[in-house]
Amino acid sequence: MSEAARKEGREAALMALSALLGARLSAAAAIREAHGRDESWHAVAMPDAVAFAETTDEVAAIMRICAAHGMPVIPFGAGTSLEGHVSAVHGGLSLDLSRMDRIIEVNTADLDVRVEAGITRKVLNDYLRDTGLFFPIDPGANATLGGMAATRASGTNAVRYGTMRENVLALTAVMADGSIIRTGTRARKSSAGYDLTRLLIGSEGTLGIITELTLRLYGIPEAVRSGVVPFASIEGAVDAVIETIQSGLPVARIEILDPLSIRACNAYSKLALAEVPTLFVEFHGTEASVAEQADRFGAIAAGHGGQQAEWASKPEDRTRLWEARHNAYYAALAFQPGKKGMVTDVCVPISRLAEAISGTLADLETSFLKAPIVGHAGDGNFHMLLLMDPSDPRDLAEATRIHDLMVARALSLGGTCTGEHGIGEGKIKFLEAEHGPGVGVMRAIKQALDPKGILNPGKIFAG
Amino acid sequence: MSEAARKEGREAALMALSALLGARLSAAAAIREAHGRDESWHAVAMPDAVAFAETTDEVAAIMRICAAHGMPVIPFGAGTSLEGHVSAVHGGLSLDLSRMDRIIEVNTADLDVRVEAGITRKVLNDYLRDTGLFFPIDPGANATLGGMAATRASGTNAVRYGTMRENVLALTAVMADGSIIRTGTRARKSSAGYDLTRLLIGSEGTLGIITELTLRLYGIPEAVRSGVVPFASIEGAVDAVIETIQSGLPVARIEILDPLSIRACNAYSKLALAEVPTLFVEFHGTEASVAEQADRFGAIAAGHGGQQAEWASKPEDRTRLWEARHNAYYAALAFQPGKKGMVTDVCVPISRLAEAISGTLADLETSFLKAPIVGHAGDGNFHMLLLMDPSDPRDLAEATRIHDLMVARALSLGGTCTGEHGIGEGKIKFLEAEHGPGVGVMRAIKQALDPKGILNPGKIFAG
Repeated sequence: MSEAARKEGREAALMALSALLGARLSAAAAIREAHGRDESWHAVAMPDAVAFAETTDEVAAIMRICAAHGMPVIPFGAGTSLEGHVSAVHGGLSLDLSRMDRIIEVNTADLDVRVEAGITRKVLNDYLRDTGLFFPIDPGANATLGGMAATRASGTNAVRYGTMRENVLALTAVMADGSIIRTGTRARKSSAGYDLTRLLIGSEGTLGIITELTLRLYGIPEAVRSGVVPFASIEGAVDAVIETIQSGLPVARIEILDPLSIRACNAYSKLALAEVPTLFVEFHGTEASVAEQADRFGAIAAGHGGQQAEWASKPEDRTRLWEARHNAYYAALAFQPGKKGMVTDVCVPISRLAEAISGTLADLETSFLKAPIVGHAGDGNFHMLLLMDPSDPRDLAEATRIHDLMVARALSLGGTCTGEHGIGEGKIKFLEAEHGPGVGVMRAIKQALDPKGILNPGKIFAG
Repeated sequence: MSEAARKEGREAALMALSALLGARLSAAAAIREAHGRDESWHAVAMPDAVAFAETTDEVAAIMRICAAHGMPVIPFGAGTSLEGHVSAVHGGLSLDLSRMDRIIEVNTADLDVRVEAGITRKVLNDYLRDTGLFFPIDPGANATLGGMAATRASGTNAVRYGTMRENVLALTAVMADGSIIRTGTRARKSSAGYDLTRLLIGSEGTLGIITELTLRLYGIPEAVRSGVVPFASIEGAVDAVIETIQSGLPVARIEILDPLSIRACNAYSKLALAEVPTLFVEFHGTEASVAEQADRFGAIAAGHGGQQAEWASKPEDRTRLWEARHNAYYAALAFQPGKKGMVTDVCVPISRLAEAISGTLADLETSFLKAPIVGHAGDGNFHMLLLMDPSDPRDLAEATRIHDLMVARALSLGGTCTGEHGIGEGKIKFLEAEHGPGVGVMRAIKQALDPKGILNPGKIFAG
């Protein structure tokens, strides 16, 4: 397509969208700028306009207009992604779903809920509290459920409850041609045809736009015990995690923080933790079972140089602890003001976690960059938050070098380049290394379902 | 393609396959016949030949030959499917994977195992026993793991351990053009690109041929308690299941059998159970936790007219009990010799299970056909085994009528036409009713990945 034809198509699309949406279509620079960035170091790429959709039918109408005019569409939830997922690298329309935040139905008898895609996890859980149920997936950021599904998010609770992959029963999605599909049912299992639910989960807005989700819920545990366990060495802390998982202990959360992370969290969240390798743990169950779990864990930790756990006895202490953990990314950024974070995200088989982390620490020892390490250790998933200035070529090259080493090591250990953040624009180069000819199959699916390449172009695949 | 060109292509393919495989390509009528049938009522459709593959590379070479000549390829494992999955409705090659039955590596430290697709679940679990680990998915029949993945199988343990969807970490598959892909890694979670693992699981051999699987394993429970609980009414038994699930009791198995099923099992498996609605249950855990679970369950059952449980105290009694349950299908067939079974498979949200079962029982009361009912009640999944003679138009029409009513009811209750058996050729007509425009998306994926339509044609989709 010639540049003139392209420009003409975009203008025609914007006119039609304006007629459809009125004031809910915005071309204001501040709004476009806010929709062209996520929380990562990736460069802002502004869309041509931002649409605030209110219904699935409206999303479908928007898609039909954009399809007719070859206009890219980038779904936008809360903008908390970490790999440049929402940036409009080819311009186009940012489709903001945050006004689609209704809870459509709660089925307490079946432990499920149907929501619109723009609701955030905190709003959902606040609403659910009175029912005695909760949705466990917890990526830290207060992301939208649609965004969490699109990136196959997980977080601290995944070791016990699984990820978005395991906890979405059904989706409503608008496809590239504006058709609306509903995948899955409320039944807990099905063998009826291809698993379109799981295909859309993790597709990062490149195959369809998720507008509604049916989610699994869980009973709020009768008893919860959270605590902090300092270790003499990072190896000891990792080995305690490995033994905990291998022993089948049903830990609900088991997070690792290195001394640098603890220092950043102490400063940012006003804590006074010892600046040593530390595990944050949590157990869910009955009073008796959490006590038993905590005892068993304590014995394992002691065997690897762990000190006595300091238990958060009051709910507010527990909340404070996990808020500090969730703010570790912001704490790290505050640690070196002016720097941004290249947030890495490898995940390896649990038995190889010690090698993966110690290898990364050895790489960092030779580097001039600082990088706190935090991780969902129970899943074999950890993040090195490389603090760097992306406008400084020396910083960027060094961060890239260390990240490349980390991913190569994870792949050689049988792992993945990303446990929960997705490919976005930041990890495209790793996809081929991880999947080889599988990338060709992914491209064929993309081509079949989005032949014009208008759904979040430039993400997952180059182009 | 003209009939002459088609025939010429097949002959050329068979010559090339014969050169590749020698005696491992067979056109013997008995072998072709055995590969054109599964355990269902569906008509035998013989392939032109049967290939016995020994390696993934060989499967790839076979696929390249068949692709070059437009020859259909139907993967074959143990032939235990129930919807005509292996029948060669357009002729072609039955690709028997049963000789690919190696265990490639057991990673006890990570609770995973890599196997070839042709190994059966019983052989795998026999091998694993000494490691203290097991693979829980248990569809009754001694199916191959490849076949179980291809149909997204589950079975009695799914209520606790999930289905094949949740328990496959990675796959090796040969695609329609003969390319080999490896999906997933040994990491427990990943957000790296489209979920090709889940796309292939449940694709029934129509998108690719699974040749290897990496599976999750679990520790053999320290304590197991199995038992039988007779009920005064089917409604009472169902309500006990619903309350058990809603209360969050982590039951490992909870199966319902109606009086007719019990009568058939008594006769076939030499049991002496009371011919009343019955639950078979099992709990996994520590000695203390199974005792607690059994107590809690006993109280729930008593509240719905359940009698005292009869616990199978010895392992051999437990084995006998579950073998009887697994043989319920064969027991039903033996109940009316000469009849075949139309095995239905709906799954509904747990709160709607009572309506789904009682509606089906009411339909059966007006019918001249006999149909025992058994089910994985904890998942909301149950089977009505319609005993009928498919060569008798009156039987077939009546079985079809009752099945149609059952599926329509399940869909109206928010459920699915098939919980674990798949679409095959038997449930094609229900796919559209369940998925609507989603079927168009499935077809687009099929077209993209198998443009010549040579992978198990006539399954999932008509044609």
